[in-house]
Amino acid sequence: MKVQSVRGTRDFYPDEMAVRNWLFERWRAASRRAGFVEVDGPVLESLDLYTEKSGPEIAEQLYCLDDKKGRRLALRPEFTPTLARMIAARQAALPTPIRWFNISRCFRYERAQRGRLREFFQWNVDLIGVEGEIADAECISLAVDAMREVGLGPDDVEIRLNDRRLLSALVRHLGIAQERVGEVFGILDKRDKVPAERVQAMLADAGLEAAQREGIERILSWQTLDDIDAAERATPEVARAADGLKRLLRMLADYGIADWCRFNIGIVRGLAYYTGAVWEVYDRNGKFRAIFGGGRYDRLLGDVGGHSMPACGFACGDAVLGLLLKERGLGPEEGFETDYYVAAWDPDWPKMLQMVRHLRSRGKRVQFDLKGSKINRQSKNAISSGARFVVVIGDKEAPWPKVLVRDLRQGTVSQPMAYRKVGDEGQ
Amino acid sequence: MKVQSVRGTRDFYPDEMAVRNWLFERWRAASRRAGFVEVDGPVLESLDLYTEKSGPEIAEQLYCLDDKKGRRLALRPEFTPTLARMIAARQAALPTPIRWFNISRCFRYERAQRGRLREFFQWNVDLIGVEGEIADAECISLAVDAMREVGLGPDDVEIRLNDRRLLSALVRHLGIAQERVGEVFGILDKRDKVPAERVQAMLADAGLEAAQREGIERILSWQTLDDIDAAERATPEVARAADGLKRLLRMLADYGIADWCRFNIGIVRGLAYYTGAVWEVYDRNGKFRAIFGGGRYDRLLGDVGGHSMPACGFACGDAVLGLLLKERGLGPEEGFETDYYVAAWDPDWPKMLQMVRHLRSRGKRVQFDLKGSKINRQSKNAISSGARFVVVIGDKEAPWPKVLVRDLRQGTVSQPMAYRKVGDEGQ
Repeated sequence: MKVQSVRGTRDFYPDEMAVRNWLFERWRAASRRAGFVEVDGPVLESLDLYTEKSGPEIAEQLYCLDDKKGRRLALRPEFTPTLARMIAARQAALPTPIRWFNISRCFRYERAQRGRLREFFQWNVDLIGVEGEIADAECISLAVDAMREVGLGPDDVEIRLNDRRLLSALVRHLGIAQERVGEVFGILDKRDKVPAERVQAMLADAGLEAAQREGIERILSWQTLDDIDAAERATPEVARAADGLKRLLRMLADYGIADWCRFNIGIVRGLAYYTGAVWEVYDRNGKFRAIFGGGRYDRLLGDVGGHSMPACGFACGDAVLGLLLKERGLGPEEGFETDYYVAAWDPDWPKMLQMVRHLRSRGKRVQFDLKGSKINRQSKNAISSGARFVVVIGDKEAPWPKVLVRDLRQGTVSQPMAYRKVGDEGQ
Repeated sequence: MKVQSVRGTRDFYPDEMAVRNWLFERWRAASRRAGFVEVDGPVLESLDLYTEKSGPEIAEQLYCLDDKKGRRLALRPEFTPTLARMIAARQAALPTPIRWFNISRCFRYERAQRGRLREFFQWNVDLIGVEGEIADAECISLAVDAMREVGLGPDDVEIRLNDRRLLSALVRHLGIAQERVGEVFGILDKRDKVPAERVQAMLADAGLEAAQREGIERILSWQTLDDIDAAERATPEVARAADGLKRLLRMLADYGIADWCRFNIGIVRGLAYYTGAVWEVYDRNGKFRAIFGGGRYDRLLGDVGGHSMPACGFACGDAVLGLLLKERGLGPEEGFETDYYVAAWDPDWPKMLQMVRHLRSRGKRVQFDLKGSKINRQSKNAISSGARFVVVIGDKEAPWPKVLVRDLRQGTVSQPMAYRKVGDEGQ
């Protein structure tokens, strides 16, 4: 019986695992520089946690299961609801602002395709307890820092920034009722994925009149916040949201990352829980869909049973970003995978193991022949093991407790030396 | 609506996450010293992968689900079947020996209790392609190295070592048919968990005669391999298995870990796929059930559709080990969580952000006040953020671009200094 892996999942052989570890380490390092600490929760959560708050698209994509007592469970499709649950459970004890990050395995039953996996990883960053734009800016700055850390620059990617409060006020200013705004946002979020006519048709289906659809088209053509016209500006909600967004853009300039960021009124984000600033990262070549994004979600904590608290953050999956990094040739540098390979002319476990123990106790990564192979075969295995040095036991020039050390990079061989002196090579 | 977490799962708040990261880093470091490379696979696998090979106990504990096309999936209860699948898929291309390790989240629907969780982590080590005892010894040595790394010693834990081939030959020597051996092993594996009379009753239920049950009782009382009697010794399978176990014990002495290891004929391991040496780690105080264990499983690769290959390894869960470490007071050392906290007399984003950028670009972990708090409140927040240094902007002694640096450990304050010079403190 040959069992296959499940579609939309990945096997991480050593090369792929090295890339994943490289990326995760960079996410962790950037998060810690920005003063965030790591947390995690379970993969298994109650279905209730997602059905109401993640929005219909995610709810449809849930992997659900019943446990043996008939409780409805789900595999987490994202981390934010877990985070909100964790904060709600200890809200009184946690000092604010809460600065948490997390790298979690998530699950969504989507059509498996390029950059869309059913099982993937997500880097989550959440800053809880701060109302001002500085919190949004702090999150965006961390996102940029992590992109720099993996080798991307402002010529590679762009952050498109908007505020749901602004777009919502503008949509209402067109005479569209408050209760339709969510539906309109859902349609606008699909703009990248479906043709323009289809968007217009969906807006018409949603009951928007021709003038309202034209108004939306006009708004979506804006390039800067100065494109807001005087009548719109006179609406207090529009003015307030536009001013907030201007403050945010100014702060991003103070962070030194203005060249990464641009206002884009068309950004709404798919998830239902965003309430303020929203942003998405795109590659400048337009080859991929949004790489990742985030925003402000001031009501989520209250919705899962805690007290309401201002909150913002972002989530970055590893799939699309991974494709972009691969395309740009960015990833871990190749190095030696093994420090020392211990070889012996005659298999002699006590001597070999003494050598191995000595080197490992000094923190070295050590391999040796486990099969009693001939010395030539051991030399070949040393190379394929990615070793920097080979220790040779039993050479007639260097009788035990002396050994020879061959440097595979330099192509040199040491003088006979006591085995206990080996370990400082290449420092 | 207040949503609860699922029973048997854990939330990792920053303190618990720090412990988990500390443990995982030690597992990784020990694995790499022993020349193992990291791999991973999916959490979602086909149910088929487990139903036949993991043994009935694990199959009962599976979390199963159907995807939308009706395919039967399961959440991995352990990593080894995934590993076997991955190797079978690339068997021709992978040079042997294969030395892989993995840290994976696993799922078992067990009765949740102390040290038994439904969602837990497991460190897996597998060495594939080597028949000799050296491979078993290499795995046990790595297990010991990792225990040393977390602060445990041979006075804390003991490795109990056996060989299924030996026990199987002895059981058959009692006149028990080959096809009953698996069942007898299953009963013996429960010895720790149920009273002795119950074990005897189960053996009787399995059809063992009184003399056979007494024979098993006698064998289980052995302390060393020399307790094997002459008639048993004369059976070639017994002699061969006993000699192999002696060679293994001698190698463990060559690794310098004889004081950690002891022969114990009663060790069988619960999983169905073990075929040779088996071992389990116990705490010397006998307070916990087996902490972890491993063994040889030479047939598993053939069973999942590859060519048969010799293999051995072990898996170490984080739950019981975590309880032991906690009991012994072992874990990460407390340190400063933040390098610099940037405080300002007057909230002034451009200056504060310039200071923050400067320090983060030098790799420092930096926090600052996001709420426009008064300077006294900022000082308190600096302490609760776990900062080592506080940079004060806007003190009248040190007008911008000068700042003061307060050392929270020493209780000292620097002379006014240019903000660009900050960053070498505490090196």
